[in-house]
Amino acid sequence: MFVGQTLGEFVAASRWQDISPALRQEGLRSILNHIGCALGVAQDPAVTTALKVMRLTAGPATSTVFGQGVKLDAMSAAFVNCIAGNLLDYDDTHLQTVIHPSAPVAPAALALAEQRGFSGAQVMHAFLLGAEVECRIGNAVSPGHYARGWHITSTCGGFGSAVATAKLLGLNAEQTWHAIGIAASQSAGLVENLPSAAKNVGMGNAARNGMLAAFLAEQGYQAAPAAIEGPLGWARAMGDTPNLAEITEGLGTRWEIARNTYKPYPAGIVFHAVIDACLALREQLGVPPEAIASVEVAGDQLLLDRGDRQVRNERDARVSIHHSAALGFVRARAGVADFEMPAVADPALAAFRAKVTARLDASLPRGAARVTARLADGRQATLTVSAPVGSIDNPMSDAALDAKFLDNAGIGGFAAQGPGMLRAVRGLEQATELGPLMAVLAG
Amino acid sequence: MFVGQTLGEFVAASRWQDISPALRQEGLRSILNHIGCALGVAQDPAVTTALKVMRLTAGPATSTVFGQGVKLDAMSAAFVNCIAGNLLDYDDTHLQTVIHPSAPVAPAALALAEQRGFSGAQVMHAFLLGAEVECRIGNAVSPGHYARGWHITSTCGGFGSAVATAKLLGLNAEQTWHAIGIAASQSAGLVENLPSAAKNVGMGNAARNGMLAAFLAEQGYQAAPAAIEGPLGWARAMGDTPNLAEITEGLGTRWEIARNTYKPYPAGIVFHAVIDACLALREQLGVPPEAIASVEVAGDQLLLDRGDRQVRNERDARVSIHHSAALGFVRARAGVADFEMPAVADPALAAFRAKVTARLDASLPRGAARVTARLADGRQATLTVSAPVGSIDNPMSDAALDAKFLDNAGIGGFAAQGPGMLRAVRGLEQATELGPLMAVLAG
Repeated sequence: MFVGQTLGEFVAASRWQDISPALRQEGLRSILNHIGCALGVAQDPAVTTALKVMRLTAGPATSTVFGQGVKLDAMSAAFVNCIAGNLLDYDDTHLQTVIHPSAPVAPAALALAEQRGFSGAQVMHAFLLGAEVECRIGNAVSPGHYARGWHITSTCGGFGSAVATAKLLGLNAEQTWHAIGIAASQSAGLVENLPSAAKNVGMGNAARNGMLAAFLAEQGYQAAPAAIEGPLGWARAMGDTPNLAEITEGLGTRWEIARNTYKPYPAGIVFHAVIDACLALREQLGVPPEAIASVEVAGDQLLLDRGDRQVRNERDARVSIHHSAALGFVRARAGVADFEMPAVADPALAAFRAKVTARLDASLPRGAARVTARLADGRQATLTVSAPVGSIDNPMSDAALDAKFLDNAGIGGFAAQGPGMLRAVRGLEQATELGPLMAVLAG
Repeated sequence: MFVGQTLGEFVAASRWQDISPALRQEGLRSILNHIGCALGVAQDPAVTTALKVMRLTAGPATSTVFGQGVKLDAMSAAFVNCIAGNLLDYDDTHLQTVIHPSAPVAPAALALAEQRGFSGAQVMHAFLLGAEVECRIGNAVSPGHYARGWHITSTCGGFGSAVATAKLLGLNAEQTWHAIGIAASQSAGLVENLPSAAKNVGMGNAARNGMLAAFLAEQGYQAAPAAIEGPLGWARAMGDTPNLAEITEGLGTRWEIARNTYKPYPAGIVFHAVIDACLALREQLGVPPEAIASVEVAGDQLLLDRGDRQVRNERDARVSIHHSAALGFVRARAGVADFEMPAVADPALAAFRAKVTARLDASLPRGAARVTARLADGRQATLTVSAPVGSIDNPMSDAALDAKFLDNAGIGGFAAQGPGMLRAVRGLEQATELGPLMAVLAG
């Protein structure tokens, strides 16, 4: 059986009552974290520009854009909300693939449900299934896919959006695998473009075009049976021989959402160990940044590929080993403002970044960092962090996630509305339809 | 200089008065041929379904869908018109890349021009520039790109649509290269999906998302400088080391549109030599199909990769060596009806297809075929065709193109309106705005 068929049957047959409370809870944590991140950047020009452009061609105003006080058609709303949720890379991360699972999937499910009157539980179910397929397909082509230049959240996100939309539409197994196959023909997004706004376009399209795939499949459009794994199909065109067992084994028993993580810092996930290590070393050494002569950060190939870079703008800062280390030692914190232009241009941070070197240590696991600080007086200290706060082994608590949501809401200009927004999202599973919730999130 | 910058400067600086009459003429032939093909499939479910789905989310009704009597927003109209123009692979072909240049580019330019009041000459200029960039980027990654599984018209078509849209919007050089880079992050489409409707989605997205790239660049969205050629950029992610000289050398002096070709048969371009050879051998041998024991078709790797296949549906038939040969010998023609389901299911054609074998002859040039027919009585005849009708060395005349347009209009249900439609398109360069032309083409 082709993997698309296996996935289609799994998705179509899945029942909400068979989803455990723990999975529901993790799904809600993912969605809550995503919406908070979107609210936090409601005033960012990257988001308001995406909204402005979508308005040029948007259709019936059925679906809310978070924090913008407007509705667009469902696909256009999903495009903007996906961009917003992921803009700062502050959203959730599936560490095995470095996929941000929620951004392409939650906006699609929420936008369609708002338009058509589906319930909060239906949204959560569609979300869990979409994230599952998205991450499993990502597993099957990782790590080569990303290393080759594919922005995996954009490329795999379309599968997630297609599946979530298909589930809400009630597509049967065959229609669902056609939706997945149609999503394969729309899969795009480049690592080269990550430091630019073109990144956002790949993301927004994952949500928008995944929905289109399901809409077309609903009306009878089909895809090739082996669209994913065929000799001229998605995985191999992209350079990968897919590990199909990663897609199909344990479907419905082992869930990828259980391996989702949330970030305390708005930086690339692989930089969190760097930040935690530098924060701890600063505490341990008890010296001002001027006393530190040099810092060496060791990590795996992904950390170096992504993070050993010049910092010229905010996007660079969020994926910089040097900036992450500088924040830990100089500012002793790494919040949203610490990655914005004033911080990028801060002479103290720039001077410290120049002291930082990155080195490959292939023996370190993905997501870990070993930081060695050498003092001007000759002392040195080394710390290895492999389970930073927010990692799978050291997760953020519900209280911490709620605090992050409120912090984001405040940054976005919704300090007063934040608690109400949080309450509304926490009540998602009980919502019989999304109108009231989305009205609150409109801001 | 990055290739995106070179292209952006070329496009922004290009002036209509510097475009030769011969190039203008070839551009018009391309657009005319494209519109005729779109009209011919106006009643095809693949087109009416795409229209139905686009209507779910379409915005202001500004831009005509050929032969459907309706308007959609510009991006949605371009999506449907692109699908229609290319549906049967009966449109134009740039043989070096096997790109169908017009389908993603002409609909974008026409839809935007209709909405915003641009002239026919502006459309032709934008079209020529879009097709140029599309084909040059295709040249830079051919033939590996297609062979690896990338549907090159879909993947490169987005660049063409982005450039045509950028030119009409009057973007400057820098905005234009950002549009090209944003298009890179949206580039998708799989060969594996060609025998299914998912192919249409890749095509429609090329037109639709290329426009989005330009709209976003107009509002300040940017892309990475090396989005095309960077180490983690478009070409290398897709598996190619691009030949950048193919993109930049002779810009403005050597034009790819001068190498565009048009099809007398609604089959993949590489099958035209097969059809011509079989038509000629049938004439030469003067025997009924039952007298032929076997047919061997030799061609290059592309011909075999695309065409050595089982024929189960219309899409298969249009890319089948076996069906092409059977039409030549059994029906002595290869018109639109000869690739439709009644022909696919015709026992006489099915029986003849079973007599046909395909063989690699790597010494044959792209687009050529050597056909050997063996008779039951022991006689055999061989014919090699390397310049079939419609090829660059044996082009369709203007009269033949006009006749094809009228034939298509009739198939689409516009026999009476066909001559008026043809006149309107032939007058494109003189049109001060597109309203009247598009009203005629609405059908």
